[in-house]
Amino acid sequence: MPTQQFNLAILGSGGVTKAFLPQLEWLIAQPGSRKLNLSFISSSKKACYDFENGLCAETALEDLAASQQAFLSLLEVLNLLETSPHKAILIDNTGAQDVADQYPEVLKRDISIVTPSKKAFAGSYRLWQDIFAAEAASNAKVYIESSVGAGLPMIALLKNLLQSGDEIIKIEGALSGTLSSIYSSFAPVDGKGISWSAAVQKAKDLGFTEPNPRDDLNGLDVARKLIVFARLAGLSVESAYSIPIQSLVPKELEAVQSGEDFLQQLPEFDSHMEKARNEAEALGKVPRYVGSVDMVSGTVKVGPELFDKTHPVAGLKGSDNLVSFYTKRYPSPLILQGAGAGGDVTAMGLIGGIIKVTSELST
Amino acid sequence: MPTQQFNLAILGSGGVTKAFLPQLEWLIAQPGSRKLNLSFISSSKKACYDFENGLCAETALEDLAASQQAFLSLLEVLNLLETSPHKAILIDNTGAQDVADQYPEVLKRDISIVTPSKKAFAGSYRLWQDIFAAEAASNAKVYIESSVGAGLPMIALLKNLLQSGDEIIKIEGALSGTLSSIYSSFAPVDGKGISWSAAVQKAKDLGFTEPNPRDDLNGLDVARKLIVFARLAGLSVESAYSIPIQSLVPKELEAVQSGEDFLQQLPEFDSHMEKARNEAEALGKVPRYVGSVDMVSGTVKVGPELFDKTHPVAGLKGSDNLVSFYTKRYPSPLILQGAGAGGDVTAMGLIGGIIKVTSELST
Repeated sequence: MPTQQFNLAILGSGGVTKAFLPQLEWLIAQPGSRKLNLSFISSSKKACYDFENGLCAETALEDLAASQQAFLSLLEVLNLLETSPHKAILIDNTGAQDVADQYPEVLKRDISIVTPSKKAFAGSYRLWQDIFAAEAASNAKVYIESSVGAGLPMIALLKNLLQSGDEIIKIEGALSGTLSSIYSSFAPVDGKGISWSAAVQKAKDLGFTEPNPRDDLNGLDVARKLIVFARLAGLSVESAYSIPIQSLVPKELEAVQSGEDFLQQLPEFDSHMEKARNEAEALGKVPRYVGSVDMVSGTVKVGPELFDKTHPVAGLKGSDNLVSFYTKRYPSPLILQGAGAGGDVTAMGLIGGIIKVTSELST
Repeated sequence: MPTQQFNLAILGSGGVTKAFLPQLEWLIAQPGSRKLNLSFISSSKKACYDFENGLCAETALEDLAASQQAFLSLLEVLNLLETSPHKAILIDNTGAQDVADQYPEVLKRDISIVTPSKKAFAGSYRLWQDIFAAEAASNAKVYIESSVGAGLPMIALLKNLLQSGDEIIKIEGALSGTLSSIYSSFAPVDGKGISWSAAVQKAKDLGFTEPNPRDDLNGLDVARKLIVFARLAGLSVESAYSIPIQSLVPKELEAVQSGEDFLQQLPEFDSHMEKARNEAEALGKVPRYVGSVDMVSGTVKVGPELFDKTHPVAGLKGSDNLVSFYTKRYPSPLILQGAGAGGDVTAMGLIGGIIKVTSELST
């Protein structure tokens, strides 16, 4: 079998790329039938590339910082990748919608995509359809593993179930590390919890929240992850706005733009959350924020629900994620849990994607 | 790409094969680039085959029962498979040691193996080495996914971690559905447990135990599963007899051959187990039977340990299995749990193995 070379192009120079490069360096050094060539990297301002000799993964970010080459548009990057006779993989770490919108075009050019971004898959259903139609007609692959559960192979697990002919009945997930962390301080399974606003503040101090915690509490991130699951399982969900989401953001604070202002006003609404906690406690339960896909009724919903204290979702610690697949063949749900956020594990999802793409496209 | 045909030969006509055939029928009917041909099936007494037109998966067991063809030795089966120009996959559902011992020979003939049996992988280290050396030198693959955790993709998860360059620190598992079931009756996380002997009897009545429950309580089955993990992770474990196993079989009952006699005498030893349960209870914990692979010290051990009541292992219900992978990159362990026994889920592991073998060998 001849050695197959793949050119890799990385878009984005933030935290995920920083964690990804050392892992990529490791992967490049592994013996095997494929040769990986890091050919291109760009930030929002600059680009740096070498299709002949490749860039050094270890120093790629420094080389990019020192580069004189201005930013290139995605189409310019694709044109560049096409000047090489080798297959190419685009690693999109930008999280940018305008890049995601062009995935069908990327695939049409037989360039594969590996990305941790949900932008392309939880957006409009039309874009989802266009992407997978373009993939099916191409000699390229798209891997979205780390878009849900970071490095936890939740999507691979779901795909394996479907591929083996099992039938999905329900998918239930605690898919926000931020909300897991807040709820485990607010309503722990053992001991007394702190107030809701203090729990949110604590998660912010630990670096688990968005700059404005409102963007975690509105449930949209969880909804987007559920949509990826639902669509993979076969439901045609239009968008995150077409499913019922129980937001944890008080109506009065919906318009508050600054994270500081939001956190300052949040304690006024603590009594409402405390009441819900007490009601759960009276039943011997704890509230947790989860989403579910019900394949029987074809519905997706997101919001707080009550769990027994010994339920795996109740016991989630730190910023862990958990997904349960209820299927026809498994007498009890298949549960996967673990660290659902963080650069290193997100990068692992990307490495896994590259391994799969290269093994499927090596002939 | 031309359609690649694979001949499938099934050894064994017991419960796993019964659950496997309908799933295989489904898989054969799926569109795709590979053609699967069920060519051979045998019990311990008879064989039935058709390499030209293939057998019908739906009626294979009836056809076997009606067959006039006497049992064939494994070498005769291999010779038959070699008369066909197509690639072949042996599905070994016998659980027989003499079949397992010949896996290196099977692979040398470029015949792939998919099996739920641990016999070949948890036996002597020499056999393990011979099997994987033969695989590496062949154009065949060996898939052992369902040998641990039945249809739970525990081995795939471990392989993915290793393949992505993560480092395993520790593997911990509750890998016996039988022992999970016994312990969850004996020392539930909520409510009062029943006596040890009653819990064992209950598991037997539910069909969860071996004919003689002694063969579950001696911990050997758990040890064998841990050995498969340890070897995959890189430890050279000699055999199940080279690691410390804390057996739950009272010394006085070790030689009792009949399951009935064993169960009749077991209540005499209840007070010993009750003492252990009370000691755990005083610490707010529950005992569970687990095994672990410590990659740092290079040790494997199996026995009862104490867990907080909110620990995922403590909460295991029914005959569920659970494995935790502690790695360098994941800040919290990666946990997979679900139904670890049963024909349907074991068969799913086999279907997954066939999909992987055919996709890796299709060119």
